[in-house]
Amino acid sequence: MPRFSLEISYDGTNFLGWQSQPHGKGVQDAVEMALRSVGEPSRVVGAGRTDAGVHALGQVAHFDAAKDWEARRLVLAVNAHLPTGVSVMRAAAVGGDFHARRGAILREYRYFIWNSPTCYPHIKPYALWLPGSHYDWPAAAAAARLLVGEHDFAAFCRSADKPADTVRRVKYARLKRRGRFIMFRILADSYLTNMVRIAVGNLLSVASGRKDGDWFRHLLCGAVDRNDSTETAAARGLFLWKVTYP
Amino acid sequence: MPRFSLEISYDGTNFLGWQSQPHGKGVQDAVEMALRSVGEPSRVVGAGRTDAGVHALGQVAHFDAAKDWEARRLVLAVNAHLPTGVSVMRAAAVGGDFHARRGAILREYRYFIWNSPTCYPHIKPYALWLPGSHYDWPAAAAAARLLVGEHDFAAFCRSADKPADTVRRVKYARLKRRGRFIMFRILADSYLTNMVRIAVGNLLSVASGRKDGDWFRHLLCGAVDRNDSTETAAARGLFLWKVTYP
Repeated sequence: MPRFSLEISYDGTNFLGWQSQPHGKGVQDAVEMALRSVGEPSRVVGAGRTDAGVHALGQVAHFDAAKDWEARRLVLAVNAHLPTGVSVMRAAAVGGDFHARRGAILREYRYFIWNSPTCYPHIKPYALWLPGSHYDWPAAAAAARLLVGEHDFAAFCRSADKPADTVRRVKYARLKRRGRFIMFRILADSYLTNMVRIAVGNLLSVASGRKDGDWFRHLLCGAVDRNDSTETAAARGLFLWKVTYP
Repeated sequence: MPRFSLEISYDGTNFLGWQSQPHGKGVQDAVEMALRSVGEPSRVVGAGRTDAGVHALGQVAHFDAAKDWEARRLVLAVNAHLPTGVSVMRAAAVGGDFHARRGAILREYRYFIWNSPTCYPHIKPYALWLPGSHYDWPAAAAAARLLVGEHDFAAFCRSADKPADTVRRVKYARLKRRGRFIMFRILADSYLTNMVRIAVGNLLSVASGRKDGDWFRHLLCGAVDRNDSTETAAARGLFLWKVTYP
């Protein structure tokens, strides 16, 4: 059976995350249902689980096909059966050893913040809206750079999902401001549960002046846990942007 | 009574246009209802009627207030009562001779097109999606420039709303492509009904090769009518971008 990879984009607003759910409200369920409609009853394996409400431009998934599709036709056929909030952007025939989750070497997330007393309705579903004017964005940008490198991210993991090894390697992390618009971009091979949203929450604690750079630095030393962090930033600002394979 | 101008942004998807409707599905109805909730029972006058499904970043409206508001507080109060698809972005006290419709000297519209076999779900409500690969965008861009200047736009007006004088002056009109993304931008002091959407429809006829530049030029000569034009482009790609006052 030929294996295909799918690049999938979705508006997470009305989904309970990527992962298949008992009541079918996972994006994975929508994709598998569309595949069934075109005669492909296979399960799909995604590169990463996104939380309820989190968006994706480039989630990647693979499945083993019953038919030998032309990639372009597979995209059209599946999209014809997907709900408006989900689209397959690309499909490619891959080798039988391709694995969307285990094979990924880099996952890029972006988190969008709109900082202004008022917010365009078109932006609201895709960004965290902060109306206040007291944020110190350069301080948050400086803290964001501290994330780069190998650290014990125990304080950046949802307690219920904490694995034995909480060390992760962040390849790139930057917070940039352009007028009312702030973007946080992070690249790593793998993440802990809620890691990006907790990182953004902690950066916001620095931006708002409730915490400082030293506190943020201390969070990365490993001798702390989730309770030392502050709130988890809202899901709607987060996008799984890109997944890279060798 | 102090008069206020409001800069209003809306997602037109779930509205029957700006104009007040018998069943309250106009954006104007939502704004007037929110104003009533803050003790302001005045009607509002908008700079321009947008069709059902058309969006706005910067619609402008004025109303006569019962109270002497601080502009910033008026924005917050009204926004607290508006549905998520509508936001007041700014308010300003204006003179009693300010008139949102009659005083406007320039109205800018932008029309967005996404030209690719697949489309991100986040873009779909805000652009016309054209999956084909056969479009000649330079030809459409050349035709778009022909709109600039004073012309009889009789062929660019919905028949039912055709006024006696169909001459309009277009100050700027450009169609620009950046990869899969095409933006048409037009500035004029006033427009005929559906003028921008019919213009885009005609530009698409040129882009697709069904019509040529000479045909488009002929449409602007005045000795033609709506039937000589082609289809009206979908509302969801259109934004009332900005209204300018002296």
